[in-house]
Amino acid sequence: MTRRRQIYEGKAKILYEGPEPGTIIQYFKDDATAFNAQKKGTISGKGVLNNRISEHLFTLLATIGIPTHFIRRLNMREQLVRQVEIIPIEVVIRNVAAGSLAKRFGIEEGTTLPRTIIEYYYKDDALNDPMVTEEHIAAFGWASQEEMHDIADMAIRVNDFMAGLFAGVGIRLVDFKLEFGRLFDGEYARVILADEISPDGCRLWDLKTNEKLDKDRFRRDMGGEAEAYQEVARRLGLMPEDDASVLDLDEHRKSRGK
Amino acid sequence: MTRRRQIYEGKAKILYEGPEPGTIIQYFKDDATAFNAQKKGTISGKGVLNNRISEHLFTLLATIGIPTHFIRRLNMREQLVRQVEIIPIEVVIRNVAAGSLAKRFGIEEGTTLPRTIIEYYYKDDALNDPMVTEEHIAAFGWASQEEMHDIADMAIRVNDFMAGLFAGVGIRLVDFKLEFGRLFDGEYARVILADEISPDGCRLWDLKTNEKLDKDRFRRDMGGEAEAYQEVARRLGLMPEDDASVLDLDEHRKSRGK
Ligand SMILES: Nc1ncnc2c1ncn2[C@@H]1O[C@H](COP(=O)(O)OP(=O)(O)OP(=O)(O)O)[C@@H](O)[C@H]1O
Ligand SMILES: Nc1ncnc2c1ncn2[C@@H]1O[C@H](COP(=O)(O)OP(=O)(O)OP(=O)(O)O)[C@@H](O)[C@H]1O
Ligand SMILES: [Mg+2]
Ligand SMILES: [Mg+2]
Repeated sequence: MTRRRQIYEGKAKILYEGPEPGTIIQYFKDDATAFNAQKKGTISGKGVLNNRISEHLFTLLATIGIPTHFIRRLNMREQLVRQVEIIPIEVVIRNVAAGSLAKRFGIEEGTTLPRTIIEYYYKDDALNDPMVTEEHIAAFGWASQEEMHDIADMAIRVNDFMAGLFAGVGIRLVDFKLEFGRLFDGEYARVILADEISPDGCRLWDLKTNEKLDKDRFRRDMGGEAEAYQEVARRLGLMPEDDASVLDLDEHRKSRGK
Repeated sequence: MTRRRQIYEGKAKILYEGPEPGTIIQYFKDDATAFNAQKKGTISGKGVLNNRISEHLFTLLATIGIPTHFIRRLNMREQLVRQVEIIPIEVVIRNVAAGSLAKRFGIEEGTTLPRTIIEYYYKDDALNDPMVTEEHIAAFGWASQEEMHDIADMAIRVNDFMAGLFAGVGIRLVDFKLEFGRLFDGEYARVILADEISPDGCRLWDLKTNEKLDKDRFRRDMGGEAEAYQEVARRLGLMPEDDASVLDLDEHRKSRGK
């Protein structure tokens, strides 16, 4: 096997140079972190599930006209994506009060918000990803006003689509995080959806029982993380009940030639 | 003297019922607090100076068409204002990085911002006045979109005017806080500037020496608070150098009939 150049190792993924210029490979790890990496652990099989779930969601979003970086899944833990210049803003879309918003405003977790709220956080671990407003984004030049307009538009559409998709399989889309990037075409750049959408960056609650099917199980030491991620994949139709092969955790080693 | 009904006692002012319906009296105390009242003290003569400085600024702002609650100063520590329904948002306008913004983004204090930044904080001591965005304000109904539009417009105009005014007397307007309120006319309400503008809620630095002429002297235990507030009044032409009567601290007692 050819040796690929590693571009970046993050908390949940490793990026490798892709086979063609302008492409990269996202490798999904089982590593889990929380509270700006103060808490660390692993969730067995998470990388495989997130790779598959994210593929599924990005593919569906493309069908409603959301431009994304996703090209194709390569194997259990890897997907080929278009390389972008990541806009250093985490876009959080909230339908129900939870986490930092519940705390910030003294609202009980689980309270449906009067309307959807979009929040922006500046991606900077050293500063602890502070919440920012469009004023800060414009003043410091992290994104242009036009880019923020496109981002807000897409975020609302992604939210409507995903809320529907999850409702259809008995899951409440409480909140989730998106990242966007610039895809250059000569001088001109357009904004597309990048990174991943998975239970790592979403709050997903069972509609009937309110059971958490997301990374909060890890953040809050609740246990059952792997089972929760599997349940999300299963409800999305990604894990035929008799077929455990999707969780063949050794497959990625073969595919990486080790 | 007639006894007036007290409506509210805040950290820096007391509000009394005014002589006519729809009016209230703002009484300016010498009490100083910082860090959400965790730090308490007094700055001798502050109330007298803030009453006079705020009168001056609101009167000037009215001349450029900013609607304000200010009617007239009654005595050394009191002013008559129009009663409004306070919009529970503190509007902070920043020209230079300082305080929480410098900390939040790891920027050195004193760095001129690439452009003016307007921030909003939800007025709620129990929640520690959290920073909020227009999304939160709209979702929780703290102000309408039209009101926020008017507020942002006025905030920019107030900033331009005050930056000029202070520059003219050798002072850099680093940042400041405004409060707005609804003035009802039957069903219809319009937004006007309320509360006060004084060194309590502004950062004012000497243009040449960067000396702080504001409440940061108190927050940071620097001493010389009273002298700093006096210097601001003096530069604004409010304290003829040979006339100390503006600081007759006993006057308010007489006027309140004690
Ligand atoms: N299409 C893309 N092109 C370039 N970079 C991308 C793309 N999609 C995602 N990224 C970036 O790749 C990294 C993915 O790694 P990972 O999710 O592990 O990062 P992380 O530990 O969350 O750290 P970060 O704070 O940088 O997001 C992130 O920095 C993400 O912004
Ligand atoms: N025209 C007005 N009508 C009604 N209330 C006003 C008006 N102008 C200012 N206020 C309110 O009067 C109070 C002034 O008191 P003070 O400045 O001491 O309050 P504070 O301790 O800062 O507390 P807070 O501002 O958090 O209520 C503030 O609550 C302010 O919002
Ligand atoms: Mg990430
Ligand atoms: Mg006040």
